[in-house]
Amino acid sequence: MRYQRPKGTADILPGESAQWEAVEKLAREIFARYGYREIRTPIFENYNIFARSAGETSDVVTKEMYDFKDKGDRHVALRPEGTAGVVRAYVENKLYGPEYNKPYKVYYMGPMFRYERPQSGRQREFHQIGVEAFGSDNPAVDVEVMTMALRLFKQLGLTGLRVAINTLGDQETRDTYRQALIDYLKPHYDELSEDSQERLEKNPLRVLDSKDPRDKQFVDDAPSILDYLTDDAQKHFDLVKEMLDELDIDYTVDPTMVRGLDYYNHTIFEVMVQAKSLGQGYTTICGGGRYSGLVEELGGPDTPGVGFGIGLERLMLLLNEEGLLKKADPDLDVYVVGIGEATNTASFKLVEAARDAGFVAERDYLNRKPKAQFKTAAKENAKVVLTIGQKELESGTVHFKVMATGEETTLPLDRIFADFKAVYQEQTKG
Amino acid sequence: MRYQRPKGTADILPGESAQWEAVEKLAREIFARYGYREIRTPIFENYNIFARSAGETSDVVTKEMYDFKDKGDRHVALRPEGTAGVVRAYVENKLYGPEYNKPYKVYYMGPMFRYERPQSGRQREFHQIGVEAFGSDNPAVDVEVMTMALRLFKQLGLTGLRVAINTLGDQETRDTYRQALIDYLKPHYDELSEDSQERLEKNPLRVLDSKDPRDKQFVDDAPSILDYLTDDAQKHFDLVKEMLDELDIDYTVDPTMVRGLDYYNHTIFEVMVQAKSLGQGYTTICGGGRYSGLVEELGGPDTPGVGFGIGLERLMLLLNEEGLLKKADPDLDVYVVGIGEATNTASFKLVEAARDAGFVAERDYLNRKPKAQFKTAAKENAKVVLTIGQKELESGTVHFKVMATGEETTLPLDRIFADFKAVYQEQTKG
Repeated sequence: MRYQRPKGTADILPGESAQWEAVEKLAREIFARYGYREIRTPIFENYNIFARSAGETSDVVTKEMYDFKDKGDRHVALRPEGTAGVVRAYVENKLYGPEYNKPYKVYYMGPMFRYERPQSGRQREFHQIGVEAFGSDNPAVDVEVMTMALRLFKQLGLTGLRVAINTLGDQETRDTYRQALIDYLKPHYDELSEDSQERLEKNPLRVLDSKDPRDKQFVDDAPSILDYLTDDAQKHFDLVKEMLDELDIDYTVDPTMVRGLDYYNHTIFEVMVQAKSLGQGYTTICGGGRYSGLVEELGGPDTPGVGFGIGLERLMLLLNEEGLLKKADPDLDVYVVGIGEATNTASFKLVEAARDAGFVAERDYLNRKPKAQFKTAAKENAKVVLTIGQKELESGTVHFKVMATGEETTLPLDRIFADFKAVYQEQTKG
Repeated sequence: MRYQRPKGTADILPGESAQWEAVEKLAREIFARYGYREIRTPIFENYNIFARSAGETSDVVTKEMYDFKDKGDRHVALRPEGTAGVVRAYVENKLYGPEYNKPYKVYYMGPMFRYERPQSGRQREFHQIGVEAFGSDNPAVDVEVMTMALRLFKQLGLTGLRVAINTLGDQETRDTYRQALIDYLKPHYDELSEDSQERLEKNPLRVLDSKDPRDKQFVDDAPSILDYLTDDAQKHFDLVKEMLDELDIDYTVDPTMVRGLDYYNHTIFEVMVQAKSLGQGYTTICGGGRYSGLVEELGGPDTPGVGFGIGLERLMLLLNEEGLLKKADPDLDVYVVGIGEATNTASFKLVEAARDAGFVAERDYLNRKPKAQFKTAAKENAKVVLTIGQKELESGTVHFKVMATGEETTLPLDRIFADFKAVYQEQTKG
């Protein structure tokens, strides 16, 4: 019987996996420079953790959660995103304690899950890289996470990047703005989409995010949150802009940007890129912002946070279409051609000697004809080909060929086994 | 409300995560030298894939599977181990095709799951690193995967390693041995454990694996599979031993070793270590072997395979107890002390300049007093501390202190921003 991977999942195969790994490695290097360290939380969590953190009315909770009852009748869910588990871990492990530097900075990378209607074409298992910094109100942290994301994208070779920022201000800002928005939208109630009609009183900011043309017509003339900022909120936003200016980072302020999470406050941002591969115009490849209340909601002390998330599938697609993914598997240093079954053990000792010396080494395992073995060596771009047959076996030698120069020589096996590295360097440099 | 991680799961926190990453990185490097490349398969699969590959009567399937019905009423399971998903991917993606080198070599690393009775103390989410090589019957591949595992353990610093090997021969070997074992055990039927009574006809080899003292008494005098090897099986096993001898690898032959998977044939092996931290005597830290029929069972062509798996939790515990885990987080190169709120932006530009130059750099974000900031810099072993206050801000300078020598100097900000790396090198070397 033939089996298939589950709907909405993918295998990341050799070749491609090395490219993923290269991106992850670069992210690790960059995050480390900023003092962010990895945190690994479980693949599944108590359902309520995600319901609480995403907001009970959000699409993630109401439509997309990959949740189920485990055998102990617990309601658990495969994590839909990274922040909630990280916040849970932050609280449960008391990482807010005085022994830790503030902000407490972490990053995560790994699989996330949503139970999507399959026709949407979106994956049920997908991957994200994200960062979170807990415990500082300083606008410098907002800008820090933005520069970190930008640094990653730039080092990956992306150009045409655009940063869009907005502020959702503080609680007072949002309360007054919320009312202004309701006052503005209410007269148009009948013209709004059903979703927006429902959201109008509960979460009117979300109407600004709607993609429905019935809602979109009202967005342009809607009141701007920037006119409702308190002095504190204004000061925070001004500092963010000042720092971005000082760092020569181009950005635009988009007062209609809202983002999904109910806990966002002050700065929110998106990094966008103009790439044909992702469709017309600019596409978001990273979103994030400052939040408050989330740590408290999951049982911790009142703690501000700021972070971002990057969808890896989209990023890999983009890098691929832009020709920015290179072959990331290591080149073959040594290929051993063994002629005849009697050379099986000697061939093995030769590749092992090469690997022992730190080289990437391969051999034939199928007792193939020399011609086929040489073909594999050429296909794999082996820098050096060692050949051993009956004659060499009897005389205790091996044939050493440097592929770049075509130079060939016969060397005693003893020397190779005594110091493979020295022989390799001597031959390839000579 | 306070939430907890699910029973049987763990958070891998900063500090510890870097140690995990160091082990994974070393494994990647070693596997790459052998031509093994990463494959990433989904976290969950069709339940039947695991049921088929582990054998319907195995503990994994009957007692431990973390399975559930998804919202589309599909019977899925979080993967209990790595091999089955890899074999499924190998078949589904036709990696046996002529365009791929044989053996097709892959490795995987990541979380695995079992729904254990919680009192067992074993984790529901745990982690494994494993390798698989498909498509070669050559005993050299058996020895290759063993040397790879040993190389990893040795480079991690482990000593007192022991390799135990056995052979389960080919189908004919197992058929005749199976009968011999039944004939030997049957007269003792009433003295065996209930589990073994049940297994006697179905899978008598498993009786050799039993930990029940009622069974153990019969193991010593049981017939040895080594006396039932066909010529082919004997030849395969002799070559494995010859190669191990040639590579100076110490091993013992343990004819009672069986291992769980029904698909094993020919060579099976375990790497063990004598470590007080894991209990008295030798403990297995890696198990593997050659298998056949598994690729066919999941719908592919008849293809031999050989591989191993390493449990990461146990390995990390061992490395920790043996004092072989070092701090793996990078050291702080630069700490910026900013005095007064007015230096917020300048401090940020300074850390960014350092990070731009590739350094690990940190600053204060909480507007703390200089003394507290210097304390953090010292605690984090910063190599260089830059200080900027009102005076420096006005004169466009920064105070540069090399911590190892205590040397201090005042430098123009312009120079720092123009080429941080040059300034750093000049100051720390001088």
